[in-house]
Amino acid sequence: MIQAGMTGSAPDRGLPAGECAARCTRAQALMAAAGLDLILLTTEPEVRYFSGFLTPFWQSPTRPWFLLLPADGRPVAVVPRIGAVAMAATWVTDIRTWPSPRPQDEGISLLADTVRDLAGTTPMLGVSQGPESHLRLPLTDWNRLLAGLPGAVLRDATPILRQLRMVKSPAEIAKIAHVCDLVSEVFEGMPAWLRPGMSDIEVFRRFRIACLEAGADDVPYLVGGAGPGGYGDIISPPQGRPLAPGDVLVLDTGATFDGYFCDFDRNYALGPADDAARDGYRLLHAATEAGFAAARPGNTCADLFAAMQAVLGRADGDVGRMGHGLGMQLTEWPSHTADDETVLQPGMVITLEPSLDLAPGRMMVHEENLVIEAAGTRWLTRRAPAELPVID
Amino acid sequence: MIQAGMTGSAPDRGLPAGECAARCTRAQALMAAAGLDLILLTTEPEVRYFSGFLTPFWQSPTRPWFLLLPADGRPVAVVPRIGAVAMAATWVTDIRTWPSPRPQDEGISLLADTVRDLAGTTPMLGVSQGPESHLRLPLTDWNRLLAGLPGAVLRDATPILRQLRMVKSPAEIAKIAHVCDLVSEVFEGMPAWLRPGMSDIEVFRRFRIACLEAGADDVPYLVGGAGPGGYGDIISPPQGRPLAPGDVLVLDTGATFDGYFCDFDRNYALGPADDAARDGYRLLHAATEAGFAAARPGNTCADLFAAMQAVLGRADGDVGRMGHGLGMQLTEWPSHTADDETVLQPGMVITLEPSLDLAPGRMMVHEENLVIEAAGTRWLTRRAPAELPVID
Repeated sequence: MIQAGMTGSAPDRGLPAGECAARCTRAQALMAAAGLDLILLTTEPEVRYFSGFLTPFWQSPTRPWFLLLPADGRPVAVVPRIGAVAMAATWVTDIRTWPSPRPQDEGISLLADTVRDLAGTTPMLGVSQGPESHLRLPLTDWNRLLAGLPGAVLRDATPILRQLRMVKSPAEIAKIAHVCDLVSEVFEGMPAWLRPGMSDIEVFRRFRIACLEAGADDVPYLVGGAGPGGYGDIISPPQGRPLAPGDVLVLDTGATFDGYFCDFDRNYALGPADDAARDGYRLLHAATEAGFAAARPGNTCADLFAAMQAVLGRADGDVGRMGHGLGMQLTEWPSHTADDETVLQPGMVITLEPSLDLAPGRMMVHEENLVIEAAGTRWLTRRAPAELPVID
Repeated sequence: MIQAGMTGSAPDRGLPAGECAARCTRAQALMAAAGLDLILLTTEPEVRYFSGFLTPFWQSPTRPWFLLLPADGRPVAVVPRIGAVAMAATWVTDIRTWPSPRPQDEGISLLADTVRDLAGTTPMLGVSQGPESHLRLPLTDWNRLLAGLPGAVLRDATPILRQLRMVKSPAEIAKIAHVCDLVSEVFEGMPAWLRPGMSDIEVFRRFRIACLEAGADDVPYLVGGAGPGGYGDIISPPQGRPLAPGDVLVLDTGATFDGYFCDFDRNYALGPADDAARDGYRLLHAATEAGFAAARPGNTCADLFAAMQAVLGRADGDVGRMGHGLGMQLTEWPSHTADDETVLQPGMVITLEPSLDLAPGRMMVHEENLVIEAAGTRWLTRRAPAELPVID
């Protein structure tokens, strides 16, 4: 069923037949090269990547969910019984369940048994251990699992998962492009309703509603800030403060379509902007252009960082990086920092996010999303205006 | 700044002065009794509980955030530099930062140094290890931290955190009550717009917009199902299927106000309902009443389970429990199961969630929210209609 947003037809939901299988096959080739017998997956994006399993039920911390990727064949799910029906709707056919909650054995003995079934008693077992990962189960249960698998040797699966997930398929890119486009339209419409005197809570509410009306499934991430000539912080929820003439407002959002995120922002001046805000905006716009020009296959994230840095002519603010990967999560590997040597490849979807300190406690951030393609790099967001928009 | 939703004035945002301090003091008394020198907190609700730090930025997996609760005094934050301004707006004054991302040392050496500063080289260090917990940092970094603290003895902090967080303050109850009331109003208004032929995607979208218009900050959790006479699954996102006459639809939502959740559902028949659906609905309504009657201080979660079970006269469906705690998370400890002996106390906010298998592949679930108070138990949701609502 196709849903039409204001910006046109949405791409199909779900993944093309064979996409999860192809992901598993690619992972299994890397596992063979690394000598891994099995990978244990415990987090939402990791489980979804190989199974297609999409549910917001992960917000409940009560139950762990496990997916095991063997050396060949389909992944095997070890999940609470409440998830059996939804998991059976994916391409996963071997689904093992336990009645949950059962804190005294929250799937751990079943998981250990399944590991032994699939890979014997001395498996080389890959789990995510590296940057940006975590294990979504209690430490006590993790220790119990290891005690139940005395012959297992742990290996870090992060490099395998990272290199696969960084490169998006056409279906993934279409979902991200769709949500980028519809949220761009919402941002473009903001000057028609944004006014001094509105509280930031009301601005956030209207923005969320506009995204939903435009066809976003959800707006899980929305932060912003507003202050005279700039803002001091870009990770806070609204404070209930009325927007005042002279404020610069930023909204930074991760809206979703079918489980994929956009992540970009827009700035607006409420009434006349001062020179520092206008000039800073132009500089950030130019830095973003420089980042786009450097976003070519073969260049590295450090090259992107250097290209933007060269325009800004100074260290960036307290954001710590000038963009990152994007997909099933609001932020994904890599990071555009001075020392991230990740090589850009066709299929990578990234943000460009230069920031600038305008004055102590006054910063400005721009952010756009793009995809690296063999034929050239393509904006997924509609480019921000070249000059700071002024709301009268 | 007070926001008015359609259901009346919202409670104040934030927490009363002294509430975080009181939480810390209570925790420190329990730490002293358990011999703990320090508790390390790594997840959003744990950090927020003691600091008041509220941001959706946790959705980015790049950076860990740490809060250390010492034996006395205020908690100490060890956070990425990007979070310093927002953390400084809380009551936390000792804020130590590192420039992040920095995968080669993502705050770990600073955290180890801070542990030593606060509790010496041989601390009894509490961390969440028990049911429903996880450590939000990479396993490699966790192992590095332990290697950097060779004299530390780990203890499970779960019992301390659980017993504190289960009992809500008046300010917390007011936030949950507010979002329960406004979402109740949205559910009551659904028959005015819900129609056969609408796709479930459109129903979800309209419901989210209605919650925002009514004053919810966000609707992070929304699942549902619809099928002839019942549904097969209650954890899935919408599928794009048009609602058909004879369907029973359920929507189950966790909307938020100021960082606190409701979690309840409502059922609707599209056109005439069959006897099994009508009778099942009445039975679940009666089971919920029995749960409410049993929800008194001194009774246990097992008593609640037994009271509902006695009405249903059979094992419940594949949900695995008949309700749970509720607060900063969609689901919190405890669980209403046959063997959860948690004693109900004034201030506990819980759900009642009986479920029934109507036929193979056809289930029904009811859910309401309530607060246990010394003067009597109080519904936070407006009670569902006694008979299955029929949409013509």
